[in-house]
Amino acid sequence: MIVQQYRDMLGAKSVIRTLSEAAAVRAAQIGSQNVFDYSLGNPSVPAPACVKEAMISLLQEEDPMALHGYSPTLGIPSVKEAIAKSLNERFGMNYGPEHIFPVSAAAAAIAHALRAVSKEGDEVLTFAPFFPEYHPYVDLTGAVLKVVPADTARFQINFPAFEEMISERTAAVLINTPNNPSGAVYSAQTLEKLAGILLEKQKEYGHDIFLISDEPYREIVFDGKEQPYVSRFYANTISCYSFSKALSLPGERIGYLAVNPACPDAALIVNMCGQISRGIGHNCPTSLMQLAVAKVLDQTADFSIYEKNRNLLYDCLTDIGFEVVKPEGTFYIFPKALEEDAVAFCQKALAYDLVLVPADTFGCPGYFRMAYCVDTEKVERSLPVLRRFAKEVYGRG
Amino acid sequence: MIVQQYRDMLGAKSVIRTLSEAAAVRAAQIGSQNVFDYSLGNPSVPAPACVKEAMISLLQEEDPMALHGYSPTLGIPSVKEAIAKSLNERFGMNYGPEHIFPVSAAAAAIAHALRAVSKEGDEVLTFAPFFPEYHPYVDLTGAVLKVVPADTARFQINFPAFEEMISERTAAVLINTPNNPSGAVYSAQTLEKLAGILLEKQKEYGHDIFLISDEPYREIVFDGKEQPYVSRFYANTISCYSFSKALSLPGERIGYLAVNPACPDAALIVNMCGQISRGIGHNCPTSLMQLAVAKVLDQTADFSIYEKNRNLLYDCLTDIGFEVVKPEGTFYIFPKALEEDAVAFCQKALAYDLVLVPADTFGCPGYFRMAYCVDTEKVERSLPVLRRFAKEVYGRG
Repeated sequence: MIVQQYRDMLGAKSVIRTLSEAAAVRAAQIGSQNVFDYSLGNPSVPAPACVKEAMISLLQEEDPMALHGYSPTLGIPSVKEAIAKSLNERFGMNYGPEHIFPVSAAAAAIAHALRAVSKEGDEVLTFAPFFPEYHPYVDLTGAVLKVVPADTARFQINFPAFEEMISERTAAVLINTPNNPSGAVYSAQTLEKLAGILLEKQKEYGHDIFLISDEPYREIVFDGKEQPYVSRFYANTISCYSFSKALSLPGERIGYLAVNPACPDAALIVNMCGQISRGIGHNCPTSLMQLAVAKVLDQTADFSIYEKNRNLLYDCLTDIGFEVVKPEGTFYIFPKALEEDAVAFCQKALAYDLVLVPADTFGCPGYFRMAYCVDTEKVERSLPVLRRFAKEVYGRG
Repeated sequence: MIVQQYRDMLGAKSVIRTLSEAAAVRAAQIGSQNVFDYSLGNPSVPAPACVKEAMISLLQEEDPMALHGYSPTLGIPSVKEAIAKSLNERFGMNYGPEHIFPVSAAAAAIAHALRAVSKEGDEVLTFAPFFPEYHPYVDLTGAVLKVVPADTARFQINFPAFEEMISERTAAVLINTPNNPSGAVYSAQTLEKLAGILLEKQKEYGHDIFLISDEPYREIVFDGKEQPYVSRFYANTISCYSFSKALSLPGERIGYLAVNPACPDAALIVNMCGQISRGIGHNCPTSLMQLAVAKVLDQTADFSIYEKNRNLLYDCLTDIGFEVVKPEGTFYIFPKALEEDAVAFCQKALAYDLVLVPADTFGCPGYFRMAYCVDTEKVERSLPVLRRFAKEVYGRG
């Protein structure tokens, strides 16, 4: 009587997890400082001090009954209000608390949004390269995830391929910018063009097409630039945000979903998310984390380390002769492997204690991802190793 | 394209929520001290001081990268180990960490357990009176919840009705002891008899029948008694625990699921729960709460207040002439209404600012629930009002 669906999921082990487990085994042999593990997207800069201060002050000053009490199904009103206000000020939106749904980080936000707007028989389109966890989120709604091939020239959107794949069955389009794994930041021009096509297709098909925008890296943009706010370009946008990367709190499972007030079903979608949460027995994110992030909404961890690492790796990789688009944000870089088979390439790199992730599961075979949320000192020590690997195995550099 | 299933759930508003909203409106008119709100099961005694101490010490002493980092999909190993050890010592079990799955409180534990072992076409049996939220948890798996009528004499199990309803389609039996809303504590005799029937039926049908045991009130038992540990009676038991009531932390969404090591699929079920969490985008409960509860596993809030309230209400209700089984635990009491229609009865009580919950949605029409997790002083002030209501409306007392 064990349900086959979940049993099957156990078979498909994550490539990233498998690699990071191999890295851990190797680290036990030669010391973790000697393994250049670029596999995991776990923030490497600590949470800013204001987070600890906010949490301790809540614990010390608030009545424990109020602090640890049940959150309403749709989230704590003061928290929803603070989030709406911050978004309105930063991005010129006009969210009210009724458009905000606090949720356990971006994963839950995306899964809730997908459950609200897609079902069996529907299609959800996303753009390669994409985060492989989109598969379980879409699969469990009964819809089918279709992957639009990558624009490998700039890792913006491959529009000709998109226009060929969008159809009457398309219920939602799922984007991620700044992008994991490419590090690309979708430009205003890209977002405008995407919105134009969606508007036109909504009209043509006579039904809504929702834009689900996965934005955990929204604040991690380099060179003093900013990510244009996706929801400004298209009314039927559901923004999925997490504090995991911005505040270096991935284990505290806190984020929110924000539905554009111009979306005719905005309040309904938020209410439905409450029912989805109820059905999966998840209810709200913790009261403490809701209240804590509301106190530090416009703060972030120190991202200058990621930018420094990006520069070191980009310069070294291009110097060696890798084909690589310069990441404008996140903490990922996404070069083309030095042979067609990126899995074989990453396997060979392992012999140099370089842990790189082949991008086959990201929908972009032939490429690999490096997550440079690691100490800069380690990045520096890895550069000669990268050079030696490329030279000895591929005669490059 | 908004999914009808969740839209429909919005229509069926919780009776408890509706009542408690009416109580809030009345409180705004006459002051909350004058509304005797017995509707909500929100703990009324604060978390013990050790919880605050544990959380502050984690925040002050742990490296924020480790403290706030991702929890493994199956939970933090040290936390799982501590939970297993505590259960083994208290209940003579032999859990290993591989049998423990930290999860966002009992709601999530039950929803995960149901998804792991039941699916479309299956039936899940539960016993009236039961917690109405079981409906969404079961409904969203595609299985059907069947409610065995109550044993109104003692609120143990109505075995003749159960034996009539159990069938080849029964995938799981869902119990809750100490029970919300009756306050009954299933005896060892009840649990032995239940296990005997389940074992016999497993053999007869040639498939597993899982016992899903919802145990958030496990420690709230009065008169120095204890709840016999359900899993000791039956191998295929999945225990669903929450710290919400035991530590007065309902908003912090922390609990666990523990599968009896004698269940042949124990480790598989825990692994599948990891995949279920992944699919709903929920992942783990927060790292901070996992680590905090692991430090205070054998502590509880002060339940003597609930026992005092139980005594006050039981004595008054029986004196008035209510038919009521004395609760042995929880913070609920479950009398028979003074007219057949408990909804009408509770409606009339509202005119006395007594907020009582009719038990129709608990599968026990004609009864009502009082959640006495309120200040004792308020309980005392409510007693003459209860007497006046029974006297004036029903000529009782």
